[in-house]
Amino acid sequence: MSKNLTKRGEDYSKWYNELVVKADLAENSGVRGCMVIKPYGYAIWEKMQAELDKKFKETGHQNAYFPLFIPKSYFSKEASHVDGFAKECAVVTHYRLKTGEDGKTIEVDPDAKLEEELIVRPTSETIIWDTYRGWIQSYRDLPLLINQWANVVRWEMRTRLFLRTAEFLWQEGHTAHATQTEAIAEAEQMMNVYADFAQDFMAIPVVKGVKTANERFAGAVETYCIEALMQDGKALQAGTSHFLGQNFAKAFDVKFANQEGKQEHVWATSWGVSTRLMGALIMTHSDDNGLVLPPNLAPIQVVIVPIYKGDEQLAQISEEANQLVARLRKVGISVKYDNRTTQKPGWKFNEYELKGVPLRVAIGPNDLANGTFEVARRDTLTKETVISIDIVHYIQDTLEKMQQNLFDKAFAFREEHITEVNTFDEFKDVLENKTGFVSAHWDGTPETEEKIKDLTKATIRCIPLDRKEEAGTCVLTGKPSAGRVLFARAY
Amino acid sequence: MSKNLTKRGEDYSKWYNELVVKADLAENSGVRGCMVIKPYGYAIWEKMQAELDKKFKETGHQNAYFPLFIPKSYFSKEASHVDGFAKECAVVTHYRLKTGEDGKTIEVDPDAKLEEELIVRPTSETIIWDTYRGWIQSYRDLPLLINQWANVVRWEMRTRLFLRTAEFLWQEGHTAHATQTEAIAEAEQMMNVYADFAQDFMAIPVVKGVKTANERFAGAVETYCIEALMQDGKALQAGTSHFLGQNFAKAFDVKFANQEGKQEHVWATSWGVSTRLMGALIMTHSDDNGLVLPPNLAPIQVVIVPIYKGDEQLAQISEEANQLVARLRKVGISVKYDNRTTQKPGWKFNEYELKGVPLRVAIGPNDLANGTFEVARRDTLTKETVISIDIVHYIQDTLEKMQQNLFDKAFAFREEHITEVNTFDEFKDVLENKTGFVSAHWDGTPETEEKIKDLTKATIRCIPLDRKEEAGTCVLTGKPSAGRVLFARAY
Repeated sequence: MSKNLTKRGEDYSKWYNELVVKADLAENSGVRGCMVIKPYGYAIWEKMQAELDKKFKETGHQNAYFPLFIPKSYFSKEASHVDGFAKECAVVTHYRLKTGEDGKTIEVDPDAKLEEELIVRPTSETIIWDTYRGWIQSYRDLPLLINQWANVVRWEMRTRLFLRTAEFLWQEGHTAHATQTEAIAEAEQMMNVYADFAQDFMAIPVVKGVKTANERFAGAVETYCIEALMQDGKALQAGTSHFLGQNFAKAFDVKFANQEGKQEHVWATSWGVSTRLMGALIMTHSDDNGLVLPPNLAPIQVVIVPIYKGDEQLAQISEEANQLVARLRKVGISVKYDNRTTQKPGWKFNEYELKGVPLRVAIGPNDLANGTFEVARRDTLTKETVISIDIVHYIQDTLEKMQQNLFDKAFAFREEHITEVNTFDEFKDVLENKTGFVSAHWDGTPETEEKIKDLTKATIRCIPLDRKEEAGTCVLTGKPSAGRVLFARAY
Repeated sequence: MSKNLTKRGEDYSKWYNELVVKADLAENSGVRGCMVIKPYGYAIWEKMQAELDKKFKETGHQNAYFPLFIPKSYFSKEASHVDGFAKECAVVTHYRLKTGEDGKTIEVDPDAKLEEELIVRPTSETIIWDTYRGWIQSYRDLPLLINQWANVVRWEMRTRLFLRTAEFLWQEGHTAHATQTEAIAEAEQMMNVYADFAQDFMAIPVVKGVKTANERFAGAVETYCIEALMQDGKALQAGTSHFLGQNFAKAFDVKFANQEGKQEHVWATSWGVSTRLMGALIMTHSDDNGLVLPPNLAPIQVVIVPIYKGDEQLAQISEEANQLVARLRKVGISVKYDNRTTQKPGWKFNEYELKGVPLRVAIGPNDLANGTFEVARRDTLTKETVISIDIVHYIQDTLEKMQQNLFDKAFAFREEHITEVNTFDEFKDVLENKTGFVSAHWDGTPETEEKIKDLTKATIRCIPLDRKEEAGTCVLTGKPSAGRVLFARAY
């Protein structure tokens, strides 16, 4: 049975769109640009949430919840912030509907116009800093370390499931500190939390760096980021952490009395990752057969499929299968026994391959006779026969190996796709043919950055934190440069 | 140090409003009717969420996520549904802001008007049933058992923290079934899940019942509910579970092929509880000293406060305290050692009393000498001296007792406040003076129900599921009645 999935080599973008829908992760809704996250996709997101939430709490953060709506006037208090977001805001103007004159249709009630329009939050700095003014009086109230899990809306014109949607789910951390040093340390810490999460939990290698002024968050002094590389050689920004200086504290008049009793403006950070990570996950590991999931993120880690003729054989196999289910659950492995009689084994094999279940265990008559199981790995598509006494340990061990193998594979791909170039011809050639990150000297000006973008569609993804000091000349202008930055075409 | 908390006996409503703010649970925001849920309040909500989510998953439900926005036209497809919600809807009409002519202010861009207005979801039946049309083809796709954790908006004119806010957080389950019997069983099951959660986890006794036609959810055939009684004798609807019949399936054309291949409309339920439960929690257990939390819901179950003179004594006490922290954490008790030197013990005692921390352990010089701890219970405000070897067991045991004690106390109060009356004079007298639930005969007509409401402000909270068949005459009209229903003034 064919999955009818477009091959990555044929059309990567089409493959992605099809996979998201066919693997039951998400689908478009009747509302322009808004997605429905289906149960299987949401279960993966819940695993990300749980792990991130644990990491936030371990680093001293607490969750809270702030309003969905932001009065228009708040929004414009921080000048660069409003410039960054005003062009893509959903605006609430009325608070009531009424029956139309025909007595059937409903329409917006013109008498129920809001005095001040409300913006559906695209990010919550403004409403949160308006609130923090009441929470912060003294250095004793600092640091204030808060995170929120929420939905946000940015009215994007071109949307793609998970990667760019009008509404998306995310977390946004918003912290307040007594000193600049402490706020910068917090922003760097959260970038590291994200990097560890991406690498250790999602098996996605990332480059840590800072954004150039052009690519910075609207209202930030410095934007730290983690950048991942997708299989098609395009980069994806997987998380950002902003040092906001005193910009929002000044815009919302948030001051504290320091230890000497003097009033000072507070220092701020904000940081977030979103359901966009689902896109990164898919485009880092999956293949032409469907989704590939790192075991840490798989809602079902092991599926057991019986191969049988007749009810009696099914009963015998089910006994074995149920024992295996119990043994695996005991050690914390999530397992499903698919004994549906309405579907053939081949159909089930395809289905679980498409959905990226890490290990598939088949039990047939021969296995029953020999006390064995046939175990198939989703990442390598290899099979092995394992005897019953070894099976639990084998599965535990293989899941760990798969988690590491997926990271190693993605890391090797990423390393192969960071190319140092020293001329603009090379630059263009790599972008067109080899793809991936192009490591090049840049003269440090927004103008050159913009020009390169116009000529090649590549942007500076980041100035890597671990870049070596290396004098060079800008790949476009020939002007002096102090080190290489990473360019790429990006999602 | 006084807490400046209004006494319940003086002004219950004022006491509630003050307590919510002073105990750091929530506060009003700059956005009309929208609250900020503060970290301490959110931590309690997270505990409710975790327990409910576990119960939903144990009963076979999966989480998913549907859009925040609902096109206006969807909203009007189910006639009674639109009637129920149209008067309190936030409406998005535009998708962009622009700089005003003065170059400073921002305004809504009139060129960015949506073709069709979007409603911010007040509940998601319409968008979800529009989606289910694509998910359900055959009986094999049923039952579909889905839950969503989300924010919703109902533009209430009079708002109160947690009890009635324009935006609130909730979960909404939406299930689809092949038969009416199965859908009714699901709606009843979820009412029972809510009742068990309220009673066993929140220590809130509830009456299970069904709503009268007047009080039914807009679009439901039957609304099951759990009703709780607050300390001021007013009722609070703590959760509802609706049997929706085929109303939404018909409105959104959701059919399935049954086992005989015949097309039928699907049967539906929906069910939800919200951050309103926080209000129920507060008004069931708390007292004039502040919040009282059942141990199951307490973010901090035990707080340890050192009573000392000088650094050396603090060091000795801290050693004991840290050992106790370790011993308690080992058995899964959440504990905080408050060794702040900026605040006096008395201040801390007040603070943790206000915040409802179930047990307070004080360690002073005498305790140090005797190897004892002084343990104070928040519910009874009693103290006991406990020797070190017994302390962990004592705390575990006392927390369990407190959970039960809070339920028992609330249950006794509720039982005392269900009064059977047989005349309308008695009816009014109980409502005015004794307050609580009034158990009375009613002739079954919406007109009588409405009239009683006009005369007394009392509504029928529910027709209890366990009511006994008892012939009687309506307390207002004298017409025949088959059994008593529960009236009350309500939140």
